[in-house]
Amino acid sequence: MKNCLLAISLLVLFLSCNENTKAKIESSALISDTQELKEAIEKAQPGDNIILKNGVWKDVKIKFRGKGTKDNPITLKAETAGKVIIEGESYLKFGGEYLVVDGLHFKNGFSPSSAVVDFKISHKDTLDEIAYHCKLTNSVIEDFNKPKRDNSDLWIQFWGRHNELSNCYIAGKTNRGPTVRVSIEGIESINNYHQIVNNHFGPRPVKGGPSGETIQLGNSYTSMSPSHTYVANNLFEECNGEVEVISSKTNFNEFRNNVFYKSEGSLVTRHGNYCTIDGNYFIGDGINENIGGIRIINTGHWVTNNYFFNLKGTSFRSPLAVMNGIPKSPLNRYNQVTDVVVAYNTYVNCSSPWQFGVGTNIAQADVLPKSEIRSARAIRTTVANNVIYNEKGLKSIVVENDKADGVTFKNNIVDNQGMDFKDFDGGIIAASLELKKISDNILIPTGIPNDVEAYNGFDFDTIEKDLFGNSRKDSKSIGAVVGADVANPNILDKSKYGTSWYSNIMEAKEPTKHVVSKSEDLQTKINEANNGDIIAVAEGTYTLSKSLIINKTVTIQSQENAKAQLVFSGEANTPLFSLESKGKLTVNNIILKGNASNYAFASLKENMANHFGLTVSNTEISDFNYVLKVYKESFSERITFENSTITNCENGIELSEETNDKGDYNTEYLTVNNCNFNNVKQNVIDYYRGGYDESTIGGNLLVTNSTFTNCGVKEQNKRLLNHNGIVNVNITKNTFKNNPVQFVSILWGAKNNVESENTLVNSGQIKTEENLVMKLMY
Amino acid sequence: MKNCLLAISLLVLFLSCNENTKAKIESSALISDTQELKEAIEKAQPGDNIILKNGVWKDVKIKFRGKGTKDNPITLKAETAGKVIIEGESYLKFGGEYLVVDGLHFKNGFSPSSAVVDFKISHKDTLDEIAYHCKLTNSVIEDFNKPKRDNSDLWIQFWGRHNELSNCYIAGKTNRGPTVRVSIEGIESINNYHQIVNNHFGPRPVKGGPSGETIQLGNSYTSMSPSHTYVANNLFEECNGEVEVISSKTNFNEFRNNVFYKSEGSLVTRHGNYCTIDGNYFIGDGINENIGGIRIINTGHWVTNNYFFNLKGTSFRSPLAVMNGIPKSPLNRYNQVTDVVVAYNTYVNCSSPWQFGVGTNIAQADVLPKSEIRSARAIRTTVANNVIYNEKGLKSIVVENDKADGVTFKNNIVDNQGMDFKDFDGGIIAASLELKKISDNILIPTGIPNDVEAYNGFDFDTIEKDLFGNSRKDSKSIGAVVGADVANPNILDKSKYGTSWYSNIMEAKEPTKHVVSKSEDLQTKINEANNGDIIAVAEGTYTLSKSLIINKTVTIQSQENAKAQLVFSGEANTPLFSLESKGKLTVNNIILKGNASNYAFASLKENMANHFGLTVSNTEISDFNYVLKVYKESFSERITFENSTITNCENGIELSEETNDKGDYNTEYLTVNNCNFNNVKQNVIDYYRGGYDESTIGGNLLVTNSTFTNCGVKEQNKRLLNHNGIVNVNITKNTFKNNPVQFVSILWGAKNNVESENTLVNSGQIKTEENLVMKLMY
Repeated sequence: MKNCLLAISLLVLFLSCNENTKAKIESSALISDTQELKEAIEKAQPGDNIILKNGVWKDVKIKFRGKGTKDNPITLKAETAGKVIIEGESYLKFGGEYLVVDGLHFKNGFSPSSAVVDFKISHKDTLDEIAYHCKLTNSVIEDFNKPKRDNSDLWIQFWGRHNELSNCYIAGKTNRGPTVRVSIEGIESINNYHQIVNNHFGPRPVKGGPSGETIQLGNSYTSMSPSHTYVANNLFEECNGEVEVISSKTNFNEFRNNVFYKSEGSLVTRHGNYCTIDGNYFIGDGINENIGGIRIINTGHWVTNNYFFNLKGTSFRSPLAVMNGIPKSPLNRYNQVTDVVVAYNTYVNCSSPWQFGVGTNIAQADVLPKSEIRSARAIRTTVANNVIYNEKGLKSIVVENDKADGVTFKNNIVDNQGMDFKDFDGGIIAASLELKKISDNILIPTGIPNDVEAYNGFDFDTIEKDLFGNSRKDSKSIGAVVGADVANPNILDKSKYGTSWYSNIMEAKEPTKHVVSKSEDLQTKINEANNGDIIAVAEGTYTLSKSLIINKTVTIQSQENAKAQLVFSGEANTPLFSLESKGKLTVNNIILKGNASNYAFASLKENMANHFGLTVSNTEISDFNYVLKVYKESFSERITFENSTITNCENGIELSEETNDKGDYNTEYLTVNNCNFNNVKQNVIDYYRGGYDESTIGGNLLVTNSTFTNCGVKEQNKRLLNHNGIVNVNITKNTFKNNPVQFVSILWGAKNNVESENTLVNSGQIKTEENLVMKLMY
Repeated sequence: MKNCLLAISLLVLFLSCNENTKAKIESSALISDTQELKEAIEKAQPGDNIILKNGVWKDVKIKFRGKGTKDNPITLKAETAGKVIIEGESYLKFGGEYLVVDGLHFKNGFSPSSAVVDFKISHKDTLDEIAYHCKLTNSVIEDFNKPKRDNSDLWIQFWGRHNELSNCYIAGKTNRGPTVRVSIEGIESINNYHQIVNNHFGPRPVKGGPSGETIQLGNSYTSMSPSHTYVANNLFEECNGEVEVISSKTNFNEFRNNVFYKSEGSLVTRHGNYCTIDGNYFIGDGINENIGGIRIINTGHWVTNNYFFNLKGTSFRSPLAVMNGIPKSPLNRYNQVTDVVVAYNTYVNCSSPWQFGVGTNIAQADVLPKSEIRSARAIRTTVANNVIYNEKGLKSIVVENDKADGVTFKNNIVDNQGMDFKDFDGGIIAASLELKKISDNILIPTGIPNDVEAYNGFDFDTIEKDLFGNSRKDSKSIGAVVGADVANPNILDKSKYGTSWYSNIMEAKEPTKHVVSKSEDLQTKINEANNGDIIAVAEGTYTLSKSLIINKTVTIQSQENAKAQLVFSGEANTPLFSLESKGKLTVNNIILKGNASNYAFASLKENMANHFGLTVSNTEISDFNYVLKVYKESFSERITFENSTITNCENGIELSEETNDKGDYNTEYLTVNNCNFNNVKQNVIDYYRGGYDESTIGGNLLVTNSTFTNCGVKEQNKRLLNHNGIVNVNITKNTFKNNPVQFVSILWGAKNNVESENTLVNSGQIKTEENLVMKLMY
């Protein structure tokens, strides 16, 4: 009987193997169009491979539905990983079980749906098809932006349970909406245990307003639900979209061993509770104050074994920013911090390692409703066994925006170069440490006094390993690393993250110089130029009747020291330089002249899917209607005018169409340095951001060393420099002379608006208003 | 080597056994005073038994600290279970691990601390000692009330993890505060897996205001934390404290196989999410509209396999009451209901099995702040596979206080006696069923059409068993019970719950009649009487100069038909009948006469730890300053005046000292029927409840068939009947004649205040105000 059973088993095994092999052969034929793809998906059986032929696939809407098994998933893959390019209006939706997509490259297009990759196939009248145990891997999504930045979408939207995004490279999102979102509305998507692992999140440029997260887990409306999403071993490189790189809004999420490299934002436990943030690296450049760390809101998080290096952020962007909550907070605002543990972390050369009471706004009680006042300080919170090394001593180790009286500090070691600090009942202990260099970014403080052993807090024995995965058992060691005999973890070796076939490392290239000596060659040469090239304009005057199209990174300058002159005779309200999507223009050492009705520079009115850029230096600009006109939903990270003159223009620099009062604006940095404005009649500088949004920290206006004379004659609101709602304003060392306005500027005192060393002659005044009344966004 | 190891192991085992035995002998000596007890606790080792000598222990403050082990706990027990009585100012606090307390009886006292039994020993300056794996079992806590009802305490307060309350009998709490509370502030108390099992929660009388829960799990401030408390196999008998018998305010709690018997309240998921409510019995009496079922707020609860019988509650007290939430609710108010599953429940003879949109108050938008408006309807909620049997057809199976448009109904079967109902897209199916009687309270509907199979919702395969624990596997059965061949579960067999030694079953006893014919015997006989006895007063006039003390249940009546007359000459502002704690007085067929400055009835000003009661019938009352004066923190479940006359008094029935505006009041039911009020100058009826509290549904004033003449002459607020804030008021078939007031009554239209068939002659008017402006309590 036994033998008989064995024989039957073998037979069954044989038959099933046979079936699989057969299915594989049948379905492994190359798919070369969407109709074939559709049919292949319909027919697919567990173990099948659906293979897309190499090449460009345009406008592909893939609804990948099917039912694989754990051992025999259904796989949809590129003939050669990376050689299948998905362009145009395309998306990929999963619905079913054990489905794998491998090796695709999404670029030159956008999703006409709410997501590029969706782990659900939605239906209006019947139940949605939700994905379980499905995976996108070894794929790239790049610049796949909707043409209008206010049109929100996601690039990857999770639903269901046990789905995975792994080994992908994802970069360049500019439009509204997080790059990756885990949605957990509905019982099908809670306790999801999704995996977001081994990905390379490449640069996401500053969005200029909220909704630019790289990863968002849930939202406030689902913030009570258990999620258990696992985010590990990812590289976040320059993920600058907004103040939150990761916005965790659900419960029991884990963030482990990720590298945050020069990312202008933080990992934020915005809503939801009981997250584990363990063994991550937060690496700054020692300069950029926008690069953050971990910002804590809510209950029960454990922040352990993390390493913070060279971070210069403060306040919201501190390496550890613990916020004040709103008492009895509304669901979508700020709950109090309680029951948080911050243990075994190491901070090296950070400007302000620990801030508590971040976001306290008791001073704004007059202009804000009670339900917006963050007065509830952190309670039942333990900060223990951390190490801080500061190459320059800090005035405070703990910055108390509000009292940290609900926090217990235990056995933290600090080398503050001998400078005194408040030690919180002996919970922060001064010591003299040495740095041991493991790599450029990893320096481990050593020499912790032998008599200081790790504090054994409640459940601390659950912190079993250190930053490098070494056991903490039998060790009383303080800080992120047990011992100092450790190998370089090579955290910035990009081959460890993302796909097997794509790298974002660019070889540095010498720019090519294209010399132009005839008007009609200008556009031709621009078209021929590669990104980074220079158009050198020979001495002389060039008359142009049509706009020059700029859709790449290019510099236009005079060939010689003597300035070439471009005279623009184009139609009214058209620009000499039309700044299109990806058009990053530098104009240097040149003369630009208009006909009084047309513009020097303007963005497009639409289709600005990717950012533009503008630097103007050593240039004389005159006789335009607008110097720069930036339309709604256009964004440039930086706009700079320096060493230039602007004369006899109707309007100056105009970035004021983002009037939705949802925190959006048109450029992150507007810099005017050493310029001379003369007879600019209105909108000399007009830069707008609206909406009360404490966590968008953007808009930066710098006006320095410049002279404004006879400007603002027609300015209706009687202000020379308009920068309503811009958070950072610095007006310094300028001269304002004979400008017939009431105010040169009205500064927002509660924010970072300052002025100094300005000379005002017959030009109204600079006034500070402490609290601006803004529209509530929430 | 192996043998050697074995030998060593055996030796170790022998030694440790030996030690244990030794310890047991040492510590098993009887403890007879608190000093010995203290020393025994200090010395206790794993496996020790500390045995309290039988008898009354007064003022015992037990701090039971120690460290037992799983296999060898430290046990503190009564010499004979139930024979150790803890009285006076006493408490028990646990701090440590594996500690057991067994067989104690707490009565005739109260805790001077914040709890009678506390699973924590608090310290001011050092860390608290918290209990883990500790247990109170086989014990009784009875009437252990603080003397003032506003002084809040708990009888059992859980902290820590894995603690247990089992096989206890707990009854009679009257003061503020839940009977049992699980506190989870701090990481030491989350994921606690406490067990509250096999207890008998005996009667908790109506509290007359909020904070009278029998079990409260957490609070709104910890409502984000995982608790995993397990409440199973308990009997809740007449737990009438307030509208919530169990108030669940944390996450992942489980309520299984409990019996709610004639309990005037509901199991409420007040805060927190993802509770399991499975296999419970909710048994009503077919009359009492206060007996509730399950009230749902928040996300992710599963309500399965429950049985509801003979429940007449509606609205907040419906068998299933699904509330509307407040959009973006503040932390302590009402979150929206989402992702709830109600499946496989059976409802027999309930007045309104399912109500949705309960608590909608959009109509009060004018008098309430926006943050109080419950307009967010339940979404993503599934109601499937339930059975309803109504002996009388109902107009609606689903009562929609607000639209139930976010609810999916699937395969529910209803016998509505042929009456039509809204069927929600076929999700509620009419059928003709038969009841099969299993016991007096368990009747199972049978005869479900064969073609209706259970709907297979997401994760429904996790509902593995039915109400009786039988497998649902391979069954497509609808309703709480698979099949009908089931044995009587004997859910009301009280020997299954509580201790091994205590029963609350009272034998019915014939009252003894004590005849009194002399004034001086009155108090003597009252003192001699047992609860329930009758004092029969012989015909004649009795003059009393001192108050009669009433501290038990007693009836005072004339011996014959002709009324005896009690004349009270006592001091001003003292009562003829002094109603003390536990004093429940019935006065029948008698004449009471005062001296114009003293009172007929009054409670004590303090020490009203237990409720009093008053019924007055066929009685003539005259010439008092107050007919009834009830002081603050006194409470009577019922106060009734019937077939009586009240003449020439300065004040009438006064229950208006609960002016804290926190929802408290002095009696649940004030009934005046067929009485005659003549020349009562002010406070004819004055009954007060203050504070906006939508979930306290109390205060009941019934004034019927009565006549009020020449009353209210001195009434300052010009209202004859004052009942501000009382939720249920019914004034019907009365005559009001020549009362010089502006209003006979001002009714609260939004609540259950009505009047009908009253005759008003020269007496002002009865007015209805739709919305009273009340002080917000939250």
